[in-house]
Amino acid sequence: MVERSQPLSGDPAARVLVAGASGFAGALAAEIVWNHPRLELREATSRADAGLRIDELYPRYRASVEMTELDIDAVEHCEAAIVAYPHHASAPVVAGLRELGLLVVDLSADFRLRDPYVYREWYGELSAPALLGDAVYGLTELYRERIREAELIANPGCYPTATVLSLAPLAAAGLIADVVVDAKSGVSGAGRGGGDRLSFATLTENASPYGVGGHRHEPEIAQELAALAGEAPPLTFVPHLLPLDQGELVSCYVRPSREVSASELRELYADRYAEERFVEVVDRPPSVREVRDSNLCRIHVDRDAGGRILVFGVIDNLWKGAAGQAVQNLNLMLGLDEGEGLR
Amino acid sequence: MVERSQPLSGDPAARVLVAGASGFAGALAAEIVWNHPRLELREATSRADAGLRIDELYPRYRASVEMTELDIDAVEHCEAAIVAYPHHASAPVVAGLRELGLLVVDLSADFRLRDPYVYREWYGELSAPALLGDAVYGLTELYRERIREAELIANPGCYPTATVLSLAPLAAAGLIADVVVDAKSGVSGAGRGGGDRLSFATLTENASPYGVGGHRHEPEIAQELAALAGEAPPLTFVPHLLPLDQGELVSCYVRPSREVSASELRELYADRYAEERFVEVVDRPPSVREVRDSNLCRIHVDRDAGGRILVFGVIDNLWKGAAGQAVQNLNLMLGLDEGEGLR
Amino acid sequence: MVERSQPLSGDPAARVLVAGASGFAGALAAEIVWNHPRLELREATSRADAGLRIDELYPRYRASVEMTELDIDAVEHCEAAIVAYPHHASAPVVAGLRELGLLVVDLSADFRLRDPYVYREWYGELSAPALLGDAVYGLTELYRERIREAELIANPGCYPTATVLSLAPLAAAGLIADVVVDAKSGVSGAGRGGGDRLSFATLTENASPYGVGGHRHEPEIAQELAALAGEAPPLTFVPHLLPLDQGELVSCYVRPSREVSASELRELYADRYAEERFVEVVDRPPSVREVRDSNLCRIHVDRDAGGRILVFGVIDNLWKGAAGQAVQNLNLMLGLDEGEGLR
Amino acid sequence: MVERSQPLSGDPAARVLVAGASGFAGALAAEIVWNHPRLELREATSRADAGLRIDELYPRYRASVEMTELDIDAVEHCEAAIVAYPHHASAPVVAGLRELGLLVVDLSADFRLRDPYVYREWYGELSAPALLGDAVYGLTELYRERIREAELIANPGCYPTATVLSLAPLAAAGLIADVVVDAKSGVSGAGRGGGDRLSFATLTENASPYGVGGHRHEPEIAQELAALAGEAPPLTFVPHLLPLDQGELVSCYVRPSREVSASELRELYADRYAEERFVEVVDRPPSVREVRDSNLCRIHVDRDAGGRILVFGVIDNLWKGAAGQAVQNLNLMLGLDEGEGLR
Repeated sequence: MVERSQPLSGDPAARVLVAGASGFAGALAAEIVWNHPRLELREATSRADAGLRIDELYPRYRASVEMTELDIDAVEHCEAAIVAYPHHASAPVVAGLRELGLLVVDLSADFRLRDPYVYREWYGELSAPALLGDAVYGLTELYRERIREAELIANPGCYPTATVLSLAPLAAAGLIADVVVDAKSGVSGAGRGGGDRLSFATLTENASPYGVGGHRHEPEIAQELAALAGEAPPLTFVPHLLPLDQGELVSCYVRPSREVSASELRELYADRYAEERFVEVVDRPPSVREVRDSNLCRIHVDRDAGGRILVFGVIDNLWKGAAGQAVQNLNLMLGLDEGEGLR
Repeated sequence: MVERSQPLSGDPAARVLVAGASGFAGALAAEIVWNHPRLELREATSRADAGLRIDELYPRYRASVEMTELDIDAVEHCEAAIVAYPHHASAPVVAGLRELGLLVVDLSADFRLRDPYVYREWYGELSAPALLGDAVYGLTELYRERIREAELIANPGCYPTATVLSLAPLAAAGLIADVVVDAKSGVSGAGRGGGDRLSFATLTENASPYGVGGHRHEPEIAQELAALAGEAPPLTFVPHLLPLDQGELVSCYVRPSREVSASELRELYADRYAEERFVEVVDRPPSVREVRDSNLCRIHVDRDAGGRILVFGVIDNLWKGAAGQAVQNLNLMLGLDEGEGLR
Repeated sequence: MVERSQPLSGDPAARVLVAGASGFAGALAAEIVWNHPRLELREATSRADAGLRIDELYPRYRASVEMTELDIDAVEHCEAAIVAYPHHASAPVVAGLRELGLLVVDLSADFRLRDPYVYREWYGELSAPALLGDAVYGLTELYRERIREAELIANPGCYPTATVLSLAPLAAAGLIADVVVDAKSGVSGAGRGGGDRLSFATLTENASPYGVGGHRHEPEIAQELAALAGEAPPLTFVPHLLPLDQGELVSCYVRPSREVSASELRELYADRYAEERFVEVVDRPPSVREVRDSNLCRIHVDRDAGGRILVFGVIDNLWKGAAGQAVQNLNLMLGLDEGEGLR
Repeated sequence: MVERSQPLSGDPAARVLVAGASGFAGALAAEIVWNHPRLELREATSRADAGLRIDELYPRYRASVEMTELDIDAVEHCEAAIVAYPHHASAPVVAGLRELGLLVVDLSADFRLRDPYVYREWYGELSAPALLGDAVYGLTELYRERIREAELIANPGCYPTATVLSLAPLAAAGLIADVVVDAKSGVSGAGRGGGDRLSFATLTENASPYGVGGHRHEPEIAQELAALAGEAPPLTFVPHLLPLDQGELVSCYVRPSREVSASELRELYADRYAEERFVEVVDRPPSVREVRDSNLCRIHVDRDAGGRILVFGVIDNLWKGAAGQAVQNLNLMLGLDEGEGLR
C-alpha cells in the first residue's frame, strides 16, 4: 500500500487543496504538502490530467493522489489552498476560494503587482481587482510579519525571488545607482507544454537570451526595489535559458551610488540575513546545483577592481522560486514553524 | 547575401524536391542537398511551417530556402524527391511523384516491409500497394546494385540500419541462433512534436526502455535478417531513450549456432566491410558521439567468456539512420559518386 | 550557525565513523548519517581532502564536518563505521576497526566474493582472508536476517544490487536458462578522479559500452544468482556509460527454462517483493530519474512475443547502489527501523 | 585505408606543423588542417600523448596522424606552424620556430598583450620579449591587412574574440560609457586535464560564475576596446561555466555615451559587418548551438526601454574562438582565400 512518507503528527494544521497540480510548480506543491508532517493534502485538481495520480504523471514523486476537476463541494472540506494556474485563469478561482473562507497562496502573477496600471500594461485586464488590496507579496524574508496575518498571498515569480533577495540589502541601503541583472534559468521555469521550443533536441548543448524586449518579471523586480529604496533604480533585466532542469542563477551588476568596500558589503549582507534559515550568504560564487531540490537561496557579494558591486544569487526555481516558498508562506499563515516540511 | 556553401560544379545532376522539410530528418535532407556540389535544392515543402525558411526554423543550418506547401506545378521542375512524411501520409505523395516521373527516396515506413500482411499487422492498411513491388530497400551496403537501378527507395529506419549492418556478417554466415538487440537512441530519433514526453525537463538525467510491447522497427529488422540468413532467427529488440540529441548505439547479444573464435569474427567483419567507406570495423567498443554529424557506421565485434557474440554498432540516427543514407541512395540512383555531399 | 537538519531524537543509537568521506559514495554516506535522526556522525576521514569540510567539497550537502586523517584514537569513540575505500585499501582498515570492536559496513569489493579464488582472479591477492568468513553480503532484501546479526557487511556493488534484485525471483524459481544483462549507468558510478575519461566534454551527448572484456561486478552477480538458483546460469553482463550523473538501469533478457506467462511473472514478482519498502514492482518500464536521490529499486517484468522474459530495474547507484543501502544495513545491525534516515 | 577527406588540390600552399595537438584547440587545428584542400598536415606533436594518433585520442576526428614529440629536424620540412601550448610554455617554442623561418600562429596568451607590463601583471614574466613587437593580434575582422603581412600571429582568446566582435562597432563610434560583459562558456573552453572540477558529475545540471576576482581575458578585451575607442571604457567582465561542451555566449550591457536609437544601432552593425563572411548580424537573440562546429560569430544588437544597449554574440569557442580563427589567419598569411577549409 502506498503511504505518506511520514505520518501526520496529530491533527493536521490544515487540509489543503492544490489547484493546478499537474504543472511543474503545482505538482511539487502537492508533493511537499503530501510529505508535510502537519498538513493534509485533501484535494489536488487538474483540468487536463484529472483521473491521473500525481505519482503517475511524475513518477519521481510520492503523492499517491488522484487529480480531480475542481469542484466547489470538495473544496469546502479544506482550510487552505495553493493555486498554480496561469495568470488570468487564476484570479477568479482565487476569488471563489476566498469567498469560501480558505487561506490562499496564489502562484500566478495576478496579485503580485500592487499598481493595477502596471498589471494592465504587462498582462492586460485585471480579473479580480477587489482582492488586490488584500494580497500580500509573498517574498517571505521581506514581508514575514504581514504574511502571518494575511489570507491571500501573491507568491513571487522565480526571477524576482532570486533577484530581490540578492539586491535587497543594497536597495535598502540606497546603494544602487543602476543595476543590470543577467538571469539564467533551467528549463522547468518555463513550465509544461512548451512544445518543440522546450524539447530536449532544441535545448541540449544550447543557451540563449530570451524575452529581450521585456520580461514580465521586470516590473515585479522594479516594484520591490522601489519599495526597498524609495524609488526604483534604473534596471536592465535579461533572462537566459540554460540546458538544465531545475535551478536559477542571477548575476547582478550594480553601479553603486557611492564607493563601498568589499568588507562593508559582506557585513551588510551577513547582517541582513543572519537570522534567515533559507538565505545563506556564502564566501564564494555559488552554483545552481548546490541548492537543487531545496528551499535555499545562496548569495555571494563582491566588488570588482572598477568599484562595481557584483551579487550572485542561486535558487531552485521550483522550490524557493515557487512551490517551496508557497509552503513557507502557508506555514506562516497557519502559525506553524516556517520551515516545517521543507528541506 | 546568403549563398550556398559551395557553388554547384556545372549543371546539377538533379533538381531535388524535399517534401516534409520541417521535421528533423527532412530538414537535414534539405540541408545536405543544399550543400551538395551536384544537386540543386529546388523546392522544400512543409505543411505546418510553409512560409518559414529552413535556416529560420533551424538556425544551425544554412539552407536559405523558404518552405512552401506541396504544389504539383513546382514539382514538375524537379527530377528527384526525398519524402519525409509520416507513414500513411507518405505513400499517396510518393505515388503522385512517381507518376510525374521523379526518382523518389521515401523516408517513411510505407514501402519498407515487402510483405503487405506484415505491414498491415504493424501499421494498418497499405495506401499504395501497387508501388510496393517497385520499391528497393535502401540499406545501401546490402542492396547497392539494385539501388542504382531503382526509381523508388524505401529508406530504412534508424534502428534497422544500425542493427542490420551490425548483424549482417553473422546472419549471412548462418551464425545467429538467437539474438537480443538492446538499442539506445538519442531524442531526435523520435522526431518533432513529442510534447512533454520529449521535453528537456523530462529527459535530462533520465533513461528508460520504451516500446517494450513491440517496436515497429522489429519486423523490419526481422525481414532483413531473414533475407540474409534464409530465415529470421529468434529476435528480441528493445529500444531505450537516452539524454542526448543525435546518436544511436545498438548492443547485439548473439547466441551463436556454432562455436566461433574472436579472431574468426574479426576477420568475418573486416572482410565484409573492407570496401565500404561508410562502415568502419573498429577494434574497441565505439561511442555514439564519434559518428555524430557524419554518415558513418562504426562496428565492433567480440565474444565473451561464455561464447556469446557481442556486436556494438553506432550511427547518427539523422545521418546514416535517415537523411544521410537517403542522399547516399540518391547519389547512386543518379549515377553520382556514392559519397558526394556526405561527410 | 550550521546545524544538523534534524535534531537527534534522544541518545544516538551509534556514533559513526565514515572513512573515505571525500569520494562520491563516502560523502553521501556521511551526509545520510549527518541527517539521520538516530545516528551521530562522529568522524569523517579522507586521505586527500583532510582539512576540508564535506559541505565545502560538495556544496549541495549539509554535513558541516571537517574531514580528518584516519586516527585510531578518534575511532575509539565510535561504535560503527562505514568504510568507502578502494578495494585492497579497504581490507586492512576494516580489519583494524573490527579489532576495536566497531560494527563495519564496507563499500569495497574486498569481502563480497565468498570464494577467495574468484576474488584472486578478478582483484588479486586478498588482504584480510581471516575476516572473509565473518562478512555478510549486504543485499538487504536477500540477507536481512543474517545482516541483523552481522558485525561486518560487504555492501554490494551497484550493478549487482540492481541486477540481483531484478533477477532474484526468477533465479529462485529456477527459471533462468541463460541471461543477458545490458546495464546502463550514470557517471557517478565511476567515482571521482577519472580525469578526461569522465570529463563533461568527453561524455556529453555520448554513450558507449565499457568493460566489455569482463567487468568486476560480473562474478558478484554470478555468485548471487548461483546462491539463489543452485548454480549460476550462463550470464553475459555488459555495462554502458550514459550522460547523466546518478542513476542506473539494468535491462535483463532471460531465456526461460520453461514457458512462463506474463501474468505468472507479474505474480511472482509481486509476491516476492510485497513486503519490501525499498523495492517496488511497477506495471510500466521504469526510468532512472524516478528513483534519483532515493533508496528505491523499481522493477518491471514482462515477456515478449518470442517468450523471452524482460526485466528492467532502476536504482540510484549512489543510494541503493552504495551509501543508501549501507545505512539500510547499519540500521538493521543496530536494531533500528530499516528505513530510518532514508528516503 | 584511412585517407584525407578531400585530396589536396595541387601542391600544398604550406606544410604545417601543429604543436600541442593533443589539447582541444590543438587537435581541432590539426583536424582542420588535415581536411584543408590547400594545406598539408606534416607534423602534429604532443608531450603527453606522443605515439597516439589524433583520431585515436579523439575518435570523432579523421586526422590519422601519429603525434610525435617536438623535434627540430622534422620541423624543418614545414613552412608554417600552429602552436597550441599553455602560456609561458609557448613563447620559447614560438621563438625557435620563428628562427627557422616558419610562419607561426600562436594560440597562447604569450603575445596577445602589447604592453609587457600588463602581461606581467596577469601572467608573470615574459619569456620572449623580443618577439612581442612582431606579433599581430589575430582578430581577423579587425586586423586583416596586417595579418596578411604578419609572420607571427597572437591568436585571440575565446572571450575576447566574441566580446570584441560584439562591441567593436560601438567602441569605434565612441558609444561606450561603460560596459558589463556577462560571458557564458561551454566546458571545452577550459581545456583538458581539469580533473573533478570539469567532470560530468560536477557540471551536469549546474552553472556558476568563475574567475570573479579577475579573469585573464579581461586585459585583452580592455586592450582592444582601447585600440578602437581611444581609451578603454570601464569594463566589468564575468565568465560563467555552462553544462555544454562547445559554445560561448557573451551578453554585453552598454551604458551609452549618448542616446542612440535601435535602428541606428542596427545600421551601425549591419554596415560594419556587411562584407564579413564569418560575422553575421541577426535580428533575434542568437543561441550558441547555431554556430557550433563552425567559424561563425553571430551578433544581435538591441536597446532596452531605459536606453541601455544590449549586444549578444555567440561563437564556437574552439572554432572562431581558437582553431578556426587560427586557420583563417593562416590562410591570410599564405595568400589563400580566408575561408578555405573552414565551415
